[in-house]
Amino acid sequence: MVSELLLSGKKAEHIYALDSWVENHYKTLTDNLIPHTIIDSEILEKISTLHSPNQTVAIVAKDNVEWNLKEKLGNGIFLVLDNLQDPGNLGAIIRTADWFGVSGIFCSPETADVYNPKVVQATMGSIFRMPFYYVNLEVLLLNNTHYVSYAAALGGNNVYEVNFSSNALLIIGNESKGISEKLLNLCSHKIAIPKFGNAESLNAAVACGVLLGLMKR
Amino acid sequence: MVSELLLSGKKAEHIYALDSWVENHYKTLTDNLIPHTIIDSEILEKISTLHSPNQTVAIVAKDNVEWNLKEKLGNGIFLVLDNLQDPGNLGAIIRTADWFGVSGIFCSPETADVYNPKVVQATMGSIFRMPFYYVNLEVLLLNNTHYVSYAAALGGNNVYEVNFSSNALLIIGNESKGISEKLLNLCSHKIAIPKFGNAESLNAAVACGVLLGLMKR
Repeated sequence: MVSELLLSGKKAEHIYALDSWVENHYKTLTDNLIPHTIIDSEILEKISTLHSPNQTVAIVAKDNVEWNLKEKLGNGIFLVLDNLQDPGNLGAIIRTADWFGVSGIFCSPETADVYNPKVVQATMGSIFRMPFYYVNLEVLLLNNTHYVSYAAALGGNNVYEVNFSSNALLIIGNESKGISEKLLNLCSHKIAIPKFGNAESLNAAVACGVLLGLMKR
Repeated sequence: MVSELLLSGKKAEHIYALDSWVENHYKTLTDNLIPHTIIDSEILEKISTLHSPNQTVAIVAKDNVEWNLKEKLGNGIFLVLDNLQDPGNLGAIIRTADWFGVSGIFCSPETADVYNPKVVQATMGSIFRMPFYYVNLEVLLLNNTHYVSYAAALGGNNVYEVNFSSNALLIIGNESKGISEKLLNLCSHKIAIPKFGNAESLNAAVACGVLLGLMKR
């Protein structure tokens, strides 16, 4: 993760790492004037949130994303997450979005914090590349004129028969409650992945992956 | 989960549950002669593996699946998991397989235990419906004449251009190492999900979902 951070060009405030790690990254650390301290594995274990910390911990300033509705976001697919709660799901969704070249992620204020350590870990580095914005989703959709919005909802149209716009908002709802009724009514299309077996639903990150995989086909 | 168990027709050896739960399921419990004991929430917390147990705990015998290679398995899609390690991934894969109507799952002996509580929980009940077999995967593939085998591997053929057989084995590998070289050489096709962004890889359960979503389109 910390290597990915350095590759992404984002600034680390300070890096604490084992001797060997600093040695392997010495050029990057010095070229970019990144403050760093060599520590031993005992201290690493104390300062890390992981049960078995790897080699290094970085302190990074949170992205303070100010975005107003007037600002043009450009073309592409954006994800819209309505009250997604599970950190593992959120992390996997950010990673999946990064794989499929999603342009950014909008989260409702109640959605899990992207800086939750479990989220950060599950993104496998994609958190440093994926822009995200915590906004009022109803206001977002009410003011949207540029994108076609697709809500993932049970009972929606068969996704295999949908011709997706390349300028799209894909809306994913809460793990148990789905998308709120109010938001659902603001979406132009309701889409669903056909069920061939007996499970009651799909995991939110898996459903998001299936939909992005079909949107990009 | 326990309600799903009762619905699936599988036998519970014994059910321990709060008064209210037993009341709600009284007909099923008595009709099927399922032994049950009413407990209070304090005892429930002690016997459950969950931090916040819901209402009930069931004791269920493990499926003792004996399967030999000569046995015909019928048509359809089967998953083949090579050394999959993360319980959350395995559970999500079983749930996804159940959604897409997969006929069964073969696991290498080193794959995580499907009876790991985290796996069971992540399946959301699909564990009671999905047949699984722990077998030597090389022997399975060497003896396979009926199914076309598709290995999910970086550098494989673009999955969007593959015409899938309806009698298929979909092979998913270990989270970090992928499919073992030996097994990969026994597969008829290598397939990959095209990357449009920058993530290094996809979560194994998400990748499995994307592939099944495309196989069933």
